[in-house]
Amino acid sequence: MREVDPARIARDIECIASFSETDRSAGHSRPTFSPAWAQAREYVLQQAREAGCETRVDAAGNLHARRPSLGWDAPAWLCGSHIDSVPTGGRFDGVTGVVTALEVLRAAPGAPVELIVFAEEEGTTFGLGMLGSKAWAGALDAAALSSVRNAQGQSFLEAGAAFGVDADRLAAERLAPSRYLGLVEVHVEQGAGMWRDHVPLAVVTAINGRRQYRCSLQGAANHAGSTTMEDRRDALAGAAEIIRYLESLARDLADGSPRTVITVGRIEVHPNAINVVPGRAAFSIDFRSSSEPVISRGEERLLARLPRLAGARGLAIQLQQTETLPVVPLDASVCQRLRAAAGRLGLQLPDAASGALHDSAILAPLVPTAMLFVASKDGISHNPAEESRVEDIALAARVVVEAFQS
Amino acid sequence: MREVDPARIARDIECIASFSETDRSAGHSRPTFSPAWAQAREYVLQQAREAGCETRVDAAGNLHARRPSLGWDAPAWLCGSHIDSVPTGGRFDGVTGVVTALEVLRAAPGAPVELIVFAEEEGTTFGLGMLGSKAWAGALDAAALSSVRNAQGQSFLEAGAAFGVDADRLAAERLAPSRYLGLVEVHVEQGAGMWRDHVPLAVVTAINGRRQYRCSLQGAANHAGSTTMEDRRDALAGAAEIIRYLESLARDLADGSPRTVITVGRIEVHPNAINVVPGRAAFSIDFRSSSEPVISRGEERLLARLPRLAGARGLAIQLQQTETLPVVPLDASVCQRLRAAAGRLGLQLPDAASGALHDSAILAPLVPTAMLFVASKDGISHNPAEESRVEDIALAARVVVEAFQS
Repeated sequence: MREVDPARIARDIECIASFSETDRSAGHSRPTFSPAWAQAREYVLQQAREAGCETRVDAAGNLHARRPSLGWDAPAWLCGSHIDSVPTGGRFDGVTGVVTALEVLRAAPGAPVELIVFAEEEGTTFGLGMLGSKAWAGALDAAALSSVRNAQGQSFLEAGAAFGVDADRLAAERLAPSRYLGLVEVHVEQGAGMWRDHVPLAVVTAINGRRQYRCSLQGAANHAGSTTMEDRRDALAGAAEIIRYLESLARDLADGSPRTVITVGRIEVHPNAINVVPGRAAFSIDFRSSSEPVISRGEERLLARLPRLAGARGLAIQLQQTETLPVVPLDASVCQRLRAAAGRLGLQLPDAASGALHDSAILAPLVPTAMLFVASKDGISHNPAEESRVEDIALAARVVVEAFQS
Repeated sequence: MREVDPARIARDIECIASFSETDRSAGHSRPTFSPAWAQAREYVLQQAREAGCETRVDAAGNLHARRPSLGWDAPAWLCGSHIDSVPTGGRFDGVTGVVTALEVLRAAPGAPVELIVFAEEEGTTFGLGMLGSKAWAGALDAAALSSVRNAQGQSFLEAGAAFGVDADRLAAERLAPSRYLGLVEVHVEQGAGMWRDHVPLAVVTAINGRRQYRCSLQGAANHAGSTTMEDRRDALAGAAEIIRYLESLARDLADGSPRTVITVGRIEVHPNAINVVPGRAAFSIDFRSSSEPVISRGEERLLARLPRLAGARGLAIQLQQTETLPVVPLDASVCQRLRAAAGRLGLQLPDAASGALHDSAILAPLVPTAMLFVASKDGISHNPAEESRVEDIALAARVVVEAFQS
């Protein structure tokens, strides 16, 4: 066994960060299948080859790397994450798990490891998250992949064709659980808790469930000067009332389950002009919790209340669920393996639950899956100021090497 | 005197409506200096020439037409409005006053009339309204016209150069009040009152004052799943709270002054992604009232409250006043002239106040100004469904002809 090298990890992070659609001062933008994303993936591919691996891309666009001595069919540990980013995101989200896996390949040449880079985790490029892992796991078919579109109007199949995505091979190349011992994804926490408590690493034992909705309000565009307050059907004012309600609903639900959050992250207003009462507003709702009963109760209240709030203002509402993902418990034996490996290195790892979703949630029903969280400075993520310690990431790599070799 | 012809008016409205950047089913879009706007202006110019007029464009981009027999220096009545539109607006806003003026030129060849088409009334193209009338009236100088920009990044001076705008001639061609007997602008009401009360025409005796602000909230973009509700500084949630407050403030102020309205018509959110807590939100505030004391009181409350609402959420706020226009009383003698002219045609015109701003508000301090309102179906305006009766517009033309010939 060779040593985990923090300097190599730091260089990998810097190199991947250099590939961005936007200037680095504005943050890192790597939409899936964009030139910046392709350059970052090419970098990972080259590093894997330099570490002595063969690489392949499956029909869903995910990149795999294994040593030829292991072969593609022998049972191995999956290790990796994603390199696509939200618009103007940070350097560590996803990238942390990919560079950890590269370092594990380098430091543990004898371990049965397969690096994986999942295609399109964030959901900001095609409006739906974890497309690569879902398609590989068989949870999304070709029809679904052809119906989601990026800002250029291309479907996942169209935009991904140049990067190995191929509807015809999807079924044949579907994830074969028998080839895998399990999956370990290292990821930054993206919350403030571990950093605040001086915890460098934690074992993730569950991933929050998520419901996403698209809500559209239709009122009447009208003149901002001559339309009295009583005569208005203002779609943005209606959206504002709903956003406030969702915020209070989340706080209310979080009373019993602190990992409960509701976010309205995206809104579009029409005609969006300074002197016109908004006639239409469409926005996203993202609702997560670590408790299934809380999700059910919250959804029930949301579905009952939003149409009432809209109706009271004379607004027509369309409320469509766009995604539903259950709370995912991670594999107890893989969690225990990580704790034990850390113990042999003299570390005691606390447990954590993931507020964010990850590709691990998609694979967990199929292969034994666990995650390691690395502390995020001040919990800032999806933001250019996102920061984690390279020494914490190196520590995660050491734990994974120890876990995979035992 | 010839007859006012409703069929000619209907044809003018249809022809101008045919010039739009967007498909007509989506509404009428004629940003100032766009190809669609230029075609509409060319149509008006041709119609004025066919009615026997000479035309010229002043250095601020406003189109003028007079009969050669009258000459450019003789005192005349200004009559007209604008042909630019909000995005996906209706067929009657502005156009009504232009086609009325065309019909007055045709029906009253002996009357001392100058048709005017003001450049950029709406404010949606360059972010500031009534640019043509303000520049002609000397209320905006070349520096101001070079600082406002359209969506293509061109200033008013740059975009208008091909249409007669010329900074060097602005001072020399400034409005000379001595050349004008007054201004009568015919416009649709854009409110529901006249239509509801079966009033086809009304004399506008005052125009509401307006304050506009740009408000920007800076929080922290962060992960929508892993950031607890307590750890968030969500700029969109803050904007929603402010939008709700402004709505209640307007209703409160309108108790004493029913013509008081506040509108948030435009909002931009960053990064505007489904799974990111919004880090920044910027929106417009448009505040109007027919009462100066109400405007002062409202502004005082708004300026005190918004920073407190933002501060309580850990959001930094920038609140900038972008426009201030006082309540404008219109000229009592011109109003009386319109009432008397209507009386001779057997009509009794009620008084109205304008909730919307118009170029008339800019010229009123310089030349005796009044307006005639034409009923708007259901008060709908700045909307493709905007509708007025051609026979009401023809009635307005008859009143104006009668007023200008007396």
